[in-house]
Amino acid sequence: MKIRVAVVGATGIAGQQVLAGLDNHPTFEVAALAASERSAGKSYADAIVDRESGIKRWYVAGTDPAPAVMALPVQDAKSLELEGIDLVFAAVESDAARELEPIYARRVPTISTARPHRMEPDVPLLIPGVNLDHLALVNEQKRRRGWQGFIATLPNCTATGMAVTLKALDLRLGIDAVMVTTMQGISGAGRDLPALDIVENIIPYIPREEERVRIETPKILGRLGEGAIIQPSIKISATCTRAGVIAGHTEAVTVALKQPASTDDVIAAFESFGTEFTGLRLPTSPRHMITVHRDPMRPQPRLDRDAEDGMTTSVGRIRPDEVLPNGIKYLLVTHNTAMGAGKGAVLLAEYLAHAGYLRA
Amino acid sequence: MKIRVAVVGATGIAGQQVLAGLDNHPTFEVAALAASERSAGKSYADAIVDRESGIKRWYVAGTDPAPAVMALPVQDAKSLELEGIDLVFAAVESDAARELEPIYARRVPTISTARPHRMEPDVPLLIPGVNLDHLALVNEQKRRRGWQGFIATLPNCTATGMAVTLKALDLRLGIDAVMVTTMQGISGAGRDLPALDIVENIIPYIPREEERVRIETPKILGRLGEGAIIQPSIKISATCTRAGVIAGHTEAVTVALKQPASTDDVIAAFESFGTEFTGLRLPTSPRHMITVHRDPMRPQPRLDRDAEDGMTTSVGRIRPDEVLPNGIKYLLVTHNTAMGAGKGAVLLAEYLAHAGYLRA
Amino acid sequence: MKIRVAVVGATGIAGQQVLAGLDNHPTFEVAALAASERSAGKSYADAIVDRESGIKRWYVAGTDPAPAVMALPVQDAKSLELEGIDLVFAAVESDAARELEPIYARRVPTISTARPHRMEPDVPLLIPGVNLDHLALVNEQKRRRGWQGFIATLPNCTATGMAVTLKALDLRLGIDAVMVTTMQGISGAGRDLPALDIVENIIPYIPREEERVRIETPKILGRLGEGAIIQPSIKISATCTRAGVIAGHTEAVTVALKQPASTDDVIAAFESFGTEFTGLRLPTSPRHMITVHRDPMRPQPRLDRDAEDGMTTSVGRIRPDEVLPNGIKYLLVTHNTAMGAGKGAVLLAEYLAHAGYLRA
Amino acid sequence: MKIRVAVVGATGIAGQQVLAGLDNHPTFEVAALAASERSAGKSYADAIVDRESGIKRWYVAGTDPAPAVMALPVQDAKSLELEGIDLVFAAVESDAARELEPIYARRVPTISTARPHRMEPDVPLLIPGVNLDHLALVNEQKRRRGWQGFIATLPNCTATGMAVTLKALDLRLGIDAVMVTTMQGISGAGRDLPALDIVENIIPYIPREEERVRIETPKILGRLGEGAIIQPSIKISATCTRAGVIAGHTEAVTVALKQPASTDDVIAAFESFGTEFTGLRLPTSPRHMITVHRDPMRPQPRLDRDAEDGMTTSVGRIRPDEVLPNGIKYLLVTHNTAMGAGKGAVLLAEYLAHAGYLRA
Repeated sequence: MKIRVAVVGATGIAGQQVLAGLDNHPTFEVAALAASERSAGKSYADAIVDRESGIKRWYVAGTDPAPAVMALPVQDAKSLELEGIDLVFAAVESDAARELEPIYARRVPTISTARPHRMEPDVPLLIPGVNLDHLALVNEQKRRRGWQGFIATLPNCTATGMAVTLKALDLRLGIDAVMVTTMQGISGAGRDLPALDIVENIIPYIPREEERVRIETPKILGRLGEGAIIQPSIKISATCTRAGVIAGHTEAVTVALKQPASTDDVIAAFESFGTEFTGLRLPTSPRHMITVHRDPMRPQPRLDRDAEDGMTTSVGRIRPDEVLPNGIKYLLVTHNTAMGAGKGAVLLAEYLAHAGYLRA
Repeated sequence: MKIRVAVVGATGIAGQQVLAGLDNHPTFEVAALAASERSAGKSYADAIVDRESGIKRWYVAGTDPAPAVMALPVQDAKSLELEGIDLVFAAVESDAARELEPIYARRVPTISTARPHRMEPDVPLLIPGVNLDHLALVNEQKRRRGWQGFIATLPNCTATGMAVTLKALDLRLGIDAVMVTTMQGISGAGRDLPALDIVENIIPYIPREEERVRIETPKILGRLGEGAIIQPSIKISATCTRAGVIAGHTEAVTVALKQPASTDDVIAAFESFGTEFTGLRLPTSPRHMITVHRDPMRPQPRLDRDAEDGMTTSVGRIRPDEVLPNGIKYLLVTHNTAMGAGKGAVLLAEYLAHAGYLRA
Repeated sequence: MKIRVAVVGATGIAGQQVLAGLDNHPTFEVAALAASERSAGKSYADAIVDRESGIKRWYVAGTDPAPAVMALPVQDAKSLELEGIDLVFAAVESDAARELEPIYARRVPTISTARPHRMEPDVPLLIPGVNLDHLALVNEQKRRRGWQGFIATLPNCTATGMAVTLKALDLRLGIDAVMVTTMQGISGAGRDLPALDIVENIIPYIPREEERVRIETPKILGRLGEGAIIQPSIKISATCTRAGVIAGHTEAVTVALKQPASTDDVIAAFESFGTEFTGLRLPTSPRHMITVHRDPMRPQPRLDRDAEDGMTTSVGRIRPDEVLPNGIKYLLVTHNTAMGAGKGAVLLAEYLAHAGYLRA
Repeated sequence: MKIRVAVVGATGIAGQQVLAGLDNHPTFEVAALAASERSAGKSYADAIVDRESGIKRWYVAGTDPAPAVMALPVQDAKSLELEGIDLVFAAVESDAARELEPIYARRVPTISTARPHRMEPDVPLLIPGVNLDHLALVNEQKRRRGWQGFIATLPNCTATGMAVTLKALDLRLGIDAVMVTTMQGISGAGRDLPALDIVENIIPYIPREEERVRIETPKILGRLGEGAIIQPSIKISATCTRAGVIAGHTEAVTVALKQPASTDDVIAAFESFGTEFTGLRLPTSPRHMITVHRDPMRPQPRLDRDAEDGMTTSVGRIRPDEVLPNGIKYLLVTHNTAMGAGKGAVLLAEYLAHAGYLRA
């Protein structure tokens, strides 16, 4: 029997990515959908397709909502029926997340793609294949809060791609400081950007994004201590820009390592990273956490974002840096709405199931 | 009587930008045109317009070649008649520049937009308003080489925009190190990029570009010594990428200053920079060498590249850096084919005329 | 003494285009601004610039609001003080236009860029240089309605560019039918399109646009009868799509003429069109109503939209059609937010002043 | 045992699309590769990857050349060894095709994506699922020319998408005239377009494209007569433009039918078309020749080009036309480099195998 999941925020872009990730899933079954009051009471089909005009609001290119999902009723997220639900995917905006996620998590394990609870001491901030040992925090969380379920959060999509590579470096070589300049795609949070702003242009600022990278990265890279994550003292500088790219964040990263390392050392650190996790062969898992390109013209967001179904982080142009001590630099492409959002949430759920955190 | 100039490489994109910059010029008159053997003997109109199809190869959007220029004969660059020419603009590819520029410079002052002679010790590498004191090198050059004319070069367009801001900082606060990630437009050298590569994409590598930034920047920022430029010991790290932007290079710059400085100190350094030069009110001069934006959404290449006719460097998002010692960071937009190429060459020529270097 | 104008909808994109068109105007002085209640009471500067963030909502690239305009108070459009105002530019959304324009027009001549009143029998639908004889309708309008002022409307921007060329053909050769497929830029009404929709894409439908072209074109081409426009019986078929182009509508037009005509006849009709009007040399007037390209690669929106400051209609690829009787076809580029909106409104105002319709 | 094929033009974009279509193919095995003299003698890996820089020239996004293909030697196309080859895919430029294809076809069945032989009376011009009955022409061709093999050609990619829909209409309702305006993607033949031309732009002309549509469409829609295709007398008018879209041609089509038809009649004609062919379930076949959209915002090239792996033609906005007699109009999206090129060639090959034309 499949694990029964509810997807909250099902009409939004993040929720739809989760739904796309759950399509035909071997382990999970979409048993309930929820959204804002406005959609409540409609079938999912009615909630996303305007009858009269025929216009459909489905944002995941190349897929369609599963027929079984189209027929499900959409519940009001504030009164979601949790009976018989084994896991909640909460893919809603910050304000809603702040209010709703604790309601769900009191009873059911809840995976959140939103910001509000990420930095709470007893809430893990997880990237599958990177810091799943932090998951043990949820036991502390349940104990402290007296909850039957828990909240497990996923990081900001920009932080995600970079953290995958930083973890690989930190394990082998140690990290002192990181500088990153991003050129981010417009899917995900950039969706609301007016077209007129981004065509043939670069937008030099994404509100709150640099702060997220600075705050979340150390928690991801931290060490599990007594009921909290002990964050390393890494200096982080971020400049986040938006480019006219549909999906895929490109990030130019410079790292000050704790010890001298050659380009080959760095490649070895990247290519050997995460094999234990990928060896689990979870359904949504990449085959390689990191894919290293030797062609200096790669990675490119349009060509590489979909590698391994958007779940690997593509890295290229690895070379010494001229400024930072023990400095190396590289570019990476990460798929912001795959590993960095809905599919990352599904992969985390697969690990939760694998590791016995669901139906416990 | 106007100063008579020859434009070599007149059918190419850089030469056409020079021609656009010379249109209706109060001081200069286009007296001769030259290009490769293939165009030699034709009128300029015939050289750039295919008679049968009507297709015109003129690359400077928003302008047309002046009728007087259209009627001029195109000479073979290898045998350009220099009699009666006061100044040569050489806007040709590297191989041609290496061979041709010394031929012209033996007799006539020659402004070059190309790479080959930039780093020769007695050749100045000039940005108007930044390091025009280096121009004195040409006296040494003429003496050493026994030439009547000289070569004065302009830097790589990516180096140009950054060097304007670095010079402003160096004058007031001193510079120890610079890190830059660029998102460059496709005009200029990117023109040959196949369309399929850049639409909805970022290209992570531009051959030779990072090297040019690293090598040329210290010479631009150097101090005029005895017959050579004394380069400061500044560490420079560059990552140069191409974005789907027509014109305008966006550069995310982080600088380690020699002393602590507030954001206001940096703004003051930028806003006070270059007033002596802009006060000359040369025809092609910007009114401000640097334009500082307070709106965090600026500068944007599409909105700001044409500010002050593409001759000012637009800067924004000035803020402290978290990694470099005395670090500050900002983004800039520079017009790669205006200040960074043809119009920069015309502005340099205006200064040469002003300072008495022509018809001396 | 200059003519005193009010601009309503001053914070919106259409109103800002009017303001840009009025900058430093020799005849008009911006004496009042109005917008929705939300902006009322603020200075214009405060209404468009967010103090805290510094973010400015000004949509006309390459210009800045005039300092005198920045200092003006923004009035509530519903209670705009009309005392001392000689002309109102109403640049507001349909619902607001329906309600507000009659209030203004009761007392003051009012130029409208909006849809609601365009098709009323006694309201002229005007393109400067095309059908200004229709302006006489306003006398009938004033008489019937007992108003001191009147409403004069401008057409939909897509209809505008095509109608300029159709009028030229109709005058010389007669028109029976028109088929057009458009590839429209995203400025103007496309501004609200989410970025994610249009990057690297074509949107095959623009709500209401095809209908506007079909309904408005015959009125523009009509003949002034007794207190109304007598519309010709021209069949019109339109397919309107949106392309990833910032500004400029490209339109592929096929026309069934009333008589056989060669390509040269058509070129002659285009090039001779409107010289009486352009001969008035009104400040915002194009020098040529229509610019004919022989280069088959033209017109292109990026290269040609700004020709003659966006006020000429650029036409190319004129050739016989294989399907329609007496068919000819061509492509045109028209600047949707210049001649097709704010600057067209200013040009109309210039003609109103010239022809004695203001302060009458 | 698999059918052994040779791919000529293997380093070019069309050849690579064929190779991608043959990857892991159940029926075909890539037994030989050929290209121009320059690549001859190298392994395929060496021919497409620059050793020193690591830069790889592989144009099919989302795929990689199969390892077995990478190891194959590249032969000189002029001396391709045909022994043991059952089928040649010739994916080369026009000049090469004119010379080479007859050499191959003398001995081996040859599928050509190129132009030169398409209009020869005894050479079929085939779209799988549309006019495969024309294939019988090859018997006449072999007889007349005394060849063991034959040439079978595929049409121009723009003609392909439209012809699929026209055939569906012609079968049920009859066609008198067709007018089409295209907005074409830049992959395929647009690949060489300089980036600077197409970003944020529309190019109004594609050399020879409109002529191909006009000439090839009637042959595709024709009836197999005695040793030749009898072409119907359909009037065709085409305007072909290039848009900043990576792949997928969008075409706005208006058709004069031979009889009145409602929108529902047209939808029925489209949805019932080609089921006999798709029922064969050939490996590369679409499930539906035509996919009809009810959402007026579809089809869009970015969202719909990859439907059914790029092999279906997506149609939308079906509605009556106001100008043509019995006129209906619609927009379609066809994948120019899938059904319209390499994968279409593979699908044709699959049918050749199915119908017994190989190894005869």
